[in-house]
Amino acid sequence: MKQKRLRDYGVTIGKLETGAYNAITDVKGVTVGHVTISEDEQQTGVTAILPHQGNIFREKLIASSHVINGFGKTIGTIQINELGTLESPIVLTNTLSIGTAADAVIDYMLEQNEEIGRTTGTINPVVCECNDMILNDIRSKTVTKKHVLKALETTSETVEEGSVGAGRGMVCYSLKGGIGTSSRQIQLTHGLYTIGVLTLTNFGSLPDLTINGQPVGSQLYNSMHSLEEIPDKGSVIVILATDLPVTERQLNRILKRTITGLSRTGSIITTGSGEVVIGFSTANKILHDKTSSCLSISAIYEEDIDLAFRAAGEATEEAVLNSLITATHVVGRSGNERPALKNLLEIYGIQLD
Amino acid sequence: MKQKRLRDYGVTIGKLETGAYNAITDVKGVTVGHVTISEDEQQTGVTAILPHQGNIFREKLIASSHVINGFGKTIGTIQINELGTLESPIVLTNTLSIGTAADAVIDYMLEQNEEIGRTTGTINPVVCECNDMILNDIRSKTVTKKHVLKALETTSETVEEGSVGAGRGMVCYSLKGGIGTSSRQIQLTHGLYTIGVLTLTNFGSLPDLTINGQPVGSQLYNSMHSLEEIPDKGSVIVILATDLPVTERQLNRILKRTITGLSRTGSIITTGSGEVVIGFSTANKILHDKTSSCLSISAIYEEDIDLAFRAAGEATEEAVLNSLITATHVVGRSGNERPALKNLLEIYGIQLD
Amino acid sequence: MKQKRLRDYGVTIGKLETGAYNAITDVKGVTVGHVTISEDEQQTGVTAILPHQGNIFREKLIASSHVINGFGKTIGTIQINELGTLESPIVLTNTLSIGTAADAVIDYMLEQNEEIGRTTGTINPVVCECNDMILNDIRSKTVTKKHVLKALETTSETVEEGSVGAGRGMVCYSLKGGIGTSSRQIQLTHGLYTIGVLTLTNFGSLPDLTINGQPVGSQLYNSMHSLEEIPDKGSVIVILATDLPVTERQLNRILKRTITGLSRTGSIITTGSGEVVIGFSTANKILHDKTSSCLSISAIYEEDIDLAFRAAGEATEEAVLNSLITATHVVGRSGNERPALKNLLEIYGIQLD
Amino acid sequence: MKQKRLRDYGVTIGKLETGAYNAITDVKGVTVGHVTISEDEQQTGVTAILPHQGNIFREKLIASSHVINGFGKTIGTIQINELGTLESPIVLTNTLSIGTAADAVIDYMLEQNEEIGRTTGTINPVVCECNDMILNDIRSKTVTKKHVLKALETTSETVEEGSVGAGRGMVCYSLKGGIGTSSRQIQLTHGLYTIGVLTLTNFGSLPDLTINGQPVGSQLYNSMHSLEEIPDKGSVIVILATDLPVTERQLNRILKRTITGLSRTGSIITTGSGEVVIGFSTANKILHDKTSSCLSISAIYEEDIDLAFRAAGEATEEAVLNSLITATHVVGRSGNERPALKNLLEIYGIQLD
Repeated sequence: MKQKRLRDYGVTIGKLETGAYNAITDVKGVTVGHVTISEDEQQTGVTAILPHQGNIFREKLIASSHVINGFGKTIGTIQINELGTLESPIVLTNTLSIGTAADAVIDYMLEQNEEIGRTTGTINPVVCECNDMILNDIRSKTVTKKHVLKALETTSETVEEGSVGAGRGMVCYSLKGGIGTSSRQIQLTHGLYTIGVLTLTNFGSLPDLTINGQPVGSQLYNSMHSLEEIPDKGSVIVILATDLPVTERQLNRILKRTITGLSRTGSIITTGSGEVVIGFSTANKILHDKTSSCLSISAIYEEDIDLAFRAAGEATEEAVLNSLITATHVVGRSGNERPALKNLLEIYGIQLD
Repeated sequence: MKQKRLRDYGVTIGKLETGAYNAITDVKGVTVGHVTISEDEQQTGVTAILPHQGNIFREKLIASSHVINGFGKTIGTIQINELGTLESPIVLTNTLSIGTAADAVIDYMLEQNEEIGRTTGTINPVVCECNDMILNDIRSKTVTKKHVLKALETTSETVEEGSVGAGRGMVCYSLKGGIGTSSRQIQLTHGLYTIGVLTLTNFGSLPDLTINGQPVGSQLYNSMHSLEEIPDKGSVIVILATDLPVTERQLNRILKRTITGLSRTGSIITTGSGEVVIGFSTANKILHDKTSSCLSISAIYEEDIDLAFRAAGEATEEAVLNSLITATHVVGRSGNERPALKNLLEIYGIQLD
Repeated sequence: MKQKRLRDYGVTIGKLETGAYNAITDVKGVTVGHVTISEDEQQTGVTAILPHQGNIFREKLIASSHVINGFGKTIGTIQINELGTLESPIVLTNTLSIGTAADAVIDYMLEQNEEIGRTTGTINPVVCECNDMILNDIRSKTVTKKHVLKALETTSETVEEGSVGAGRGMVCYSLKGGIGTSSRQIQLTHGLYTIGVLTLTNFGSLPDLTINGQPVGSQLYNSMHSLEEIPDKGSVIVILATDLPVTERQLNRILKRTITGLSRTGSIITTGSGEVVIGFSTANKILHDKTSSCLSISAIYEEDIDLAFRAAGEATEEAVLNSLITATHVVGRSGNERPALKNLLEIYGIQLD
Repeated sequence: MKQKRLRDYGVTIGKLETGAYNAITDVKGVTVGHVTISEDEQQTGVTAILPHQGNIFREKLIASSHVINGFGKTIGTIQINELGTLESPIVLTNTLSIGTAADAVIDYMLEQNEEIGRTTGTINPVVCECNDMILNDIRSKTVTKKHVLKALETTSETVEEGSVGAGRGMVCYSLKGGIGTSSRQIQLTHGLYTIGVLTLTNFGSLPDLTINGQPVGSQLYNSMHSLEEIPDKGSVIVILATDLPVTERQLNRILKRTITGLSRTGSIITTGSGEVVIGFSTANKILHDKTSSCLSISAIYEEDIDLAFRAAGEATEEAVLNSLITATHVVGRSGNERPALKNLLEIYGIQLD
């Protein structure tokens, strides 16, 4: 069943057009896979993103990362920043499963590339995380390498949102958060390009939640007297994909603009957890094996970048809101539960305008 | 005559209380001075901030800087970042006057400190800028060292806002921008602290302007068919002062949160100019002459920092809006002019709610 | 049997005195443990460093990291840099075992801290790596969680050097590298302090090797016609411990000076792998649970830091050379082997002066 | 009269070949100009570097900067780092003249580009400095805009070294320092490229001075009992030019390797002043006015970068030593004087080998 997303409620974020899916997979070649674990106290999972459908180790992509708040455990950014390239899929999971996930990505890459560790160097796995300990028995470390490999092997262009994959146990604005995605198209003189964003949302305090300028969080908070206000642990992962030809410096500038979207949903970027943005562009492929000539990197003029900045903010804002509005009610560890925004809107008769 | 500020229109930003002045000068010891140049084509000026009333070279303050967007010419951040201290006043002016301003600050410091360049080292002047070329004949470089020295010598706790000082020629959201300020108080178990912000606003495109969630910019833009939409050059300077005891790392984290306030006013952080944040804390004084023992630096626990994050965002948001709402209509270079928000609200009958 | 170290050959690096062990463990509380795997094609291992003997999660240390060259996969630096603290042991291993090692550190920390993931947040494991694929069948991923836990549980103040622990398969200046350590004492007016360094060496090309100004590498290279010159993959991990009271900013400045020592051994910091420095100071403990008052952080005056800079360079230089001079000949994967410097010096009659 | 340089003493640094001049001007298009002020207490000056002979504002170059030690006042790096381009000449002078120098560069650029501040934005002047207060009456601020403009207007491919230009009053390893330059050629499959370095040297303590592994500083220090050991203030500016096609990220990696050369001359990078590296590549010109298509940036494969790393270290090392060996004895402020290395070598009969 198709999920009801923010735009299905009549809310449009920003000014730019979305891509066909309004998802990160509007960037050609990008696919997403989820493995969701939902068994009593275990409410967690894995989300995998393939940056393109070829061999990412042999055809690397220009990439960058940006730390909004570094109280997090994301793996792989040191090399991304030094070399400006991504050479592995990106895996999202819960905080205490990062070792397992990194190990699974290594296995996955070794399997695909027999020369790693033999005739060429090693591999830089990229693993991002948020802490789902409220709803998930995170200490039990239920995520296995098999779960990670399955997420990697079952990706598609259709992105399920809400309480799925790595988002299963996440809490956003004191409500059920999780996975959300959105995209924007930008028209330049030399082409039509797409910026797609996928977020894993686990931050924010209910009274701060703002939807397109509407203080929905306050409205809900004032209506509900039973909801415990969870101290915000501030964690969000933003994955940005684009087919815009950019250098890693330009891409980094774009990644930094995702914060405008987070801020407009109400984030004050609290201290408690990690907010990390990782992005890649599919426009230039950097071959693992050098040739005898130079690389020729296609990149936009800096004056053309403002539309990408706007797109990054808008897509991030809508992806966060999509994660909230699609999420379903989850009961997990010790009976902790987080309500679904869509249910609360109905219960308290709040209209999104 | 007292200026009519945002709160005088009934608009309250955020949740925290302001200080007595609702200004950066609510942080004890901080004073601000303006020199405004307004002569036909010359519409520019200087704004000076004294971090405390003693000898700032001999009693340095813990300081930090953060670059939101580096298409700017701010002077002095390399040393602030390396040593974590501020040892001079902060001067704001137009882009092409940074050399003059730096030279004036050097003179000012040499005058006060005879040992500089003799028995001790040199001085790190801090100068920030925005480009006021629309309203000001910036090429004529009308700002002199005397202007800068006068701004330094005429500071007070009362901060005039709007089209004054360095803000004289600035343009914000296609309207007249300039100087704005605001403050917030935060109550921790060990004391009541203040975070004050002063902004020099020169960014944004009218349709993006948002006031407390209200799309005022779109409302105006749709009402006015004559207003040229100025391409956003994205420049803003944010100066943050606090008496909160923090390390330079903690202060830097606080500075990074000012972007949440900028974003909520509608900023997408366009490429075109510099967005730089500089902050200092008056809580620890770092003496220029070392003693025979160690320093003892007072600092909050990290868990106590979220209120400061919220305060930084709120004060920045309100300071930007104060710069807009207090600004007066200015006609300058080549007859270019920028309207005052307060006049437009009246003309088009738009209420701030 | 006590290993013969650089000073036992009559070579003294630098001007400052060493601590009693001339090892990282001269910093009180620091202990080091190795698990060495040496079975045919498997020549690898794990080295663990405990920053102090208490509960490091509950009594965090001020810490910092510095990336010299980021073509590496070190885990944990994002949080170290954001919060300025270390809350786990540091584990070193081969590149493809980082996931396993991170997972083991997580288990180790969960075991010691029942509140993690329940009443408090998660844990930031710190894992560093070099690529030992020349001598080790790195694809077989022979390091298990048990190896890591054993290294963590068998630390002591005595540090074995050379072809041990994580250093088992490492190659340095085309010779056998591995683990080396050294320390320096610095006398300030307010106390005698120690800076200790441990290096995992896996970089450099033989002709560049310089020992105390003597071009030993060239001398060897010209003598030996059989030695294959291995393309330098540039990888080195430097762990720096100190009891000097410093802020994370000051510590970071100290970490950056380790490069002077690396350079003097002949490094040109080639592109191919990761060079990462992680350091901590035992002088201030940052309690996990905040109190109702502020922290009071003891820190040196900046003018007193030069001795620490000198110490960091000298100890790093000597640690690298100790790793080389203590290393034993190792035969590993596919019969690849790397000679021991001490054997070559004897064979070719080269004196260290 | 041609100056006697390091190689004229029979000393060869490193393994790579130099360019024809063994100077930064071996990179085609680069020229250097000096204005030297030497009048009693005034011993200072200006050095200007033109990155190419066209209009640098309209044809910008890919550029980057790297701060080794940030206790300095260099102007212009924020924009270089954000945009990855250089759009002005680079001027070097004494610390208290940075404002004057920046203002002069602004005038120089306004003169050449009438559209600045009218139909296009502003200009980012790049000014670097060291503190020459020992030999120069720095407080008198004797450098004027005319001096700066003259340096900019009298550049050539011939680079005078030693006690000239901005180097007039500088002190290096307690001896007379100043300006030094060197270059290296690197052969890749697709071409022969040059890396040129110019240094302004003002750092180091005599006993640390090392020339090609020889402890010349100690030898001198032990011979001379009259020489006061000046506390090292650690300042050095390194300007690196290349015609190698690189991105700003790759260039930044190259800049970071200059520290290996500094270290091998004996630097421990003391706290006291600024050590900043600025570099540019002439291989790609980034036009100020965008076209309707994308940029195509030529860049080497990362695997080809090691020769550039080696070249950067070698050229920096030799440039520092050239500044020392060419410098002449200078008497300045309060009769302070610094001896020339070449004179001391002769007096004390020390041979460079």
